[in-house]
Order: sequence, then C-alpha cells, then structure tokens
Amino acid sequence: MSDLSCTPEPPYYAVIFTSRRAAEHEGYGEMADRMVELAGEQPGFLGIESVRQGTIGITVSYWRSLEAIDGWRKHAEHGVAQRLGRDAWYDEYAIRVARVERARSFTRAEG
Amino acid sequence: MSDLSCTPEPPYYAVIFTSRRAAEHEGYGEMADRMVELAGEQPGFLGIESVRQGTIGITVSYWRSLEAIDGWRKHAEHGVAQRLGRDAWYDEYAIRVARVERARSFTRAEG
Repeated sequence: MSDLSCTPEPPYYAVIFTSRRAAEHEGYGEMADRMVELAGEQPGFLGIESVRQGTIGITVSYWRSLEAIDGWRKHAEHGVAQRLGRDAWYDEYAIRVARVERARSFTRAEG
Repeated sequence: MSDLSCTPEPPYYAVIFTSRRAAEHEGYGEMADRMVELAGEQPGFLGIESVRQGTIGITVSYWRSLEAIDGWRKHAEHGVAQRLGRDAWYDEYAIRVARVERARSFTRAEG
C-alpha cells in the first residue's frame, strides 16, 4: 500500500477501481505494482491509493483532468493489463470516474 | 469487506475515505462495522465498499445526493465515531466528496 495521497485543492478527478478476484493468480501482484508505478509517470497524475484484503481490492487514483484519465486508459502497457484482468484475474470489477468537489484531511499533531 | 456495490446509472456521489492508523486500537473494528451498518440505513444510501490492509483503510460509500451525504455527516452516532477517530484512532485521514460521472463494470460469465 502506498501512503495516503497529497492532492491539490478540488476540483480534480478520481478513478475508483474496485475488484474481486476468484483466487490468487501468478503474476498478479507484480502487474498490479507495475501499473501503480506506470500510472505515476503519466501526465496529469496526482496520486494513487491502493489496498487489497483477500480477494477484494480498492484502488483510487487521482488525476488533473478527464483527458489525463483517457490518456492512461489508452496506454499500451495498461491495455495489456486490462485484457489480462478480464481474461484471467478478475471475477468482477467496477470503474467509476468521479469529479472531486470537496476534500478535507486530518493529520495528528506531533507529540 | 462487503461485496462490491451495485449502483445506479450516474450521476450520483461517492465519499472516498482513506485513513492511516498508528496501531490497532480496542473497539475500532466494532465501531467501523457499526458505521457501515448505520450508513446503510440512511436515506439516499446506495452502497459501501471497505477494505483494510494493515493500518491503511479505504472506504468508498455511494449516495444519491449531496444532501444525503450531509445528513450522514451530521448523524449523531456517526459524530461520536468521528470524534473518536480524531482523538484516538487515526494518525491521518482524507475525505473526498466526488460526483460520479461515468461508471462501467465487468462480471465474468458463468462456466
């Protein structure tokens, strides 16, 4: 799991990816980690948060614009992972693109 | 972890709650489970997905409107949990309210 993301003032966009896998599959973890790394190199990327618990995963990535999200969706190496996801890894998933309108955060004071 | 949520056609709203705890705290799991149950009883609630991995958690709840989200935010028992979260449980958290504009999902065909 990456740390919590530090994002700018809204508005910006979030891609909420929730998934359920049938079982552990060889190569899944490596590909998932590679996608996080690769997403971080895309134009307009703002941050990513990803948690897995058993077969359920939630990954939220943050982007400056819808154009940035479309660019990432069409990325060639990401496309390979998307196909593997449908062909092998996931029993079920949902992808939601949402415009972040309000945000607040809390950090415990030191000491 | 609840199952993946079945939500209506967009637009609707998502509340993305990401958090980091310092360590395990007594009563946290029970309170978190109670909040999921209680959220499900609120007007305008559409679904909730929640995953914890170590000290990191991501919970995404879905709502019909901003009014529904405000109602839940101001719920008395939820308010108690919010205070405990700041006083004891969380080292860090972020709450993002986002308008879901596009959604797609995949379910593996049987057999």
